[in-house]
Amino acid sequence: MKFAIDLAKRATGQTSPNPVVGCVVVKEGEIVGFGAHLRAGEAHAEVNAIQMAGEEKTRESTVYVTLEPCSHFGKTPPCSDLLIQSQVSRVVIASTDPNPLVAGKGIAKLRKAGIEVEVGVCADEALALNQVFFHHIKTGKPFITLKTAASLDGKTATHTNESKWVTGPDARMDVHQYRHQHDAILVGVGTVLADNPSLDTRLPNGGKNPIRVILDSHLRTPLDSKVVTDGKAPTWIITGSKPDNEKMAILEGREGVRVYSLPMEKVEVHALLSLLGEEGITSLFVEGGATVNGSFLKNNAIQQVITYIAPKLIGGKDAPTVIGGEGFATMDEVMELEIKEVTRIGPDLKIISTPKVDKRR
Amino acid sequence: MKFAIDLAKRATGQTSPNPVVGCVVVKEGEIVGFGAHLRAGEAHAEVNAIQMAGEEKTRESTVYVTLEPCSHFGKTPPCSDLLIQSQVSRVVIASTDPNPLVAGKGIAKLRKAGIEVEVGVCADEALALNQVFFHHIKTGKPFITLKTAASLDGKTATHTNESKWVTGPDARMDVHQYRHQHDAILVGVGTVLADNPSLDTRLPNGGKNPIRVILDSHLRTPLDSKVVTDGKAPTWIITGSKPDNEKMAILEGREGVRVYSLPMEKVEVHALLSLLGEEGITSLFVEGGATVNGSFLKNNAIQQVITYIAPKLIGGKDAPTVIGGEGFATMDEVMELEIKEVTRIGPDLKIISTPKVDKRR
Repeated sequence: MKFAIDLAKRATGQTSPNPVVGCVVVKEGEIVGFGAHLRAGEAHAEVNAIQMAGEEKTRESTVYVTLEPCSHFGKTPPCSDLLIQSQVSRVVIASTDPNPLVAGKGIAKLRKAGIEVEVGVCADEALALNQVFFHHIKTGKPFITLKTAASLDGKTATHTNESKWVTGPDARMDVHQYRHQHDAILVGVGTVLADNPSLDTRLPNGGKNPIRVILDSHLRTPLDSKVVTDGKAPTWIITGSKPDNEKMAILEGREGVRVYSLPMEKVEVHALLSLLGEEGITSLFVEGGATVNGSFLKNNAIQQVITYIAPKLIGGKDAPTVIGGEGFATMDEVMELEIKEVTRIGPDLKIISTPKVDKRR
Repeated sequence: MKFAIDLAKRATGQTSPNPVVGCVVVKEGEIVGFGAHLRAGEAHAEVNAIQMAGEEKTRESTVYVTLEPCSHFGKTPPCSDLLIQSQVSRVVIASTDPNPLVAGKGIAKLRKAGIEVEVGVCADEALALNQVFFHHIKTGKPFITLKTAASLDGKTATHTNESKWVTGPDARMDVHQYRHQHDAILVGVGTVLADNPSLDTRLPNGGKNPIRVILDSHLRTPLDSKVVTDGKAPTWIITGSKPDNEKMAILEGREGVRVYSLPMEKVEVHALLSLLGEEGITSLFVEGGATVNGSFLKNNAIQQVITYIAPKLIGGKDAPTVIGGEGFATMDEVMELEIKEVTRIGPDLKIISTPKVDKRR
């Protein structure tokens, strides 16, 4: 199963909106075939592995698969049927599929056909592989990673708003890896007005640009801002119920730009997330500024936090910090997390943490 | 030499105002004696080691010592004389002694007596052992460790000033270890007024209480505050040139309380540090609040930073942060540090860092 999980990991970031899956076929103690699901619409892991093993060796084999085999016709026929036809004798599954189209039906089908099924081997690792996919399937909203970068004393800039650069080049490059892995990136219109960023992925070997989502209740995104003009990736501007219709029409006329007007004056975080989820965004990388970060925090709309800390002291009562807005009033309300990983990146530190109590909606 | 450094480490925190020193005597490839300096006024490391080896085995031996043997009469006779009398043939020294009373004179004395001397073996490790001592000797001021504790988003409390607790019990206990190791602890009068702390060391096995230094330009320390009444450790109140003489007299009448009036209306950090250095304080643990931390930062009066980070998100544009005051205006001016150590303490993180460019005065 460890090998199957390794195989699944290789496809991380390239199967969206599908989960990553790995599969290994073992007969008489020998590996006779293995495979992974590599791209949405293409062969599932089980199909690849069984093809490698061939008809004869698959018969009466044990199949290890990281996710419950599907039971429905999607872009490919159901894998549980394939396993039954191939006359395997045992299937070991790491985690069940939360997709309501599958959700135990694949397992039931196999058992009904007389195949021995074991579930839950390395379940935690397998769940971690597909946390984004599972979150999206369960909630209909994207999995949200909040990224922040600050000095050791929690500042994102000096009190005069100078911020170039707090973190070093290695940490800044690391951020591009996350942009590449996410379906979409979100900033507030404040960041667009202040920095005019292009929000694209700039890795040494290229990389995929995420869809750029601008939270802009009052449609203040300038017509000449990079996200509107540079065409590097689609730009979705999420605005409130009272946009300037003329400006909205001009923006929508620009190639790659879409404006979504939500039925509320000020865009609410969960309405925004439902919209993005429906539009097929499974993962959202939130890069601030402080006010937007504050809204996501107050709405408990954070599934993962990536914190970069630069060993610098900026000081200043009025220097800006990572998360603004109103904030929580009491220590009982604050969001508690668990540190999952601490890494040195050049001179800086990267901390990956996840909410302790799952407050996802 | 590694063994000698290990021996010196064992005495960390108990030799002030003296440095820690370890010594190993080797003859014909065998360790024949070893020792350390354990307490000010008691035997130096060399004396202990030579005593263990005995007269005969010390003759023509090689002596490894972490710090240049002293050449002057202090509370004990000079060790360089002892080494010469003992007729050792070789002395290997990790680091020279910056104390102007020694500073190469010990080495010169040994060489003049025909003893082979090697200097600089494991010098960095040996210097690190006595960084506090060396800093005090060189600058006449205490070695300053700034301690901060904040959430992952750099806040020390909610916007309503609730701060119990940001970090967990393990991190808070770790702080007491540092209080034990420091000669003195410093807070601003704002912290005394807000929290009325006792600033003592509360370790499971007791521990030494540091001298409590209160930065209090306008002598606002209340007569009924714990630092004035509890008698747990000496309290030094550092005030400006225009104190309320009546209140000052009352405070000075309290057991263990001293008031120092500096010749300036608002106490300047470096004047304060010179005073403490002269009074024999070699190490100072600065525990804030934000305004005091800001003054130390602006004055580049920080030799080490201990940062505790709790995996919590508090949020809030107006929530207090670790370092207040004015802060630096440009990124060129900010204090750059180097991360020396990152440790998980319970659910929290401890980061130890030191200034990259030595801006100590």
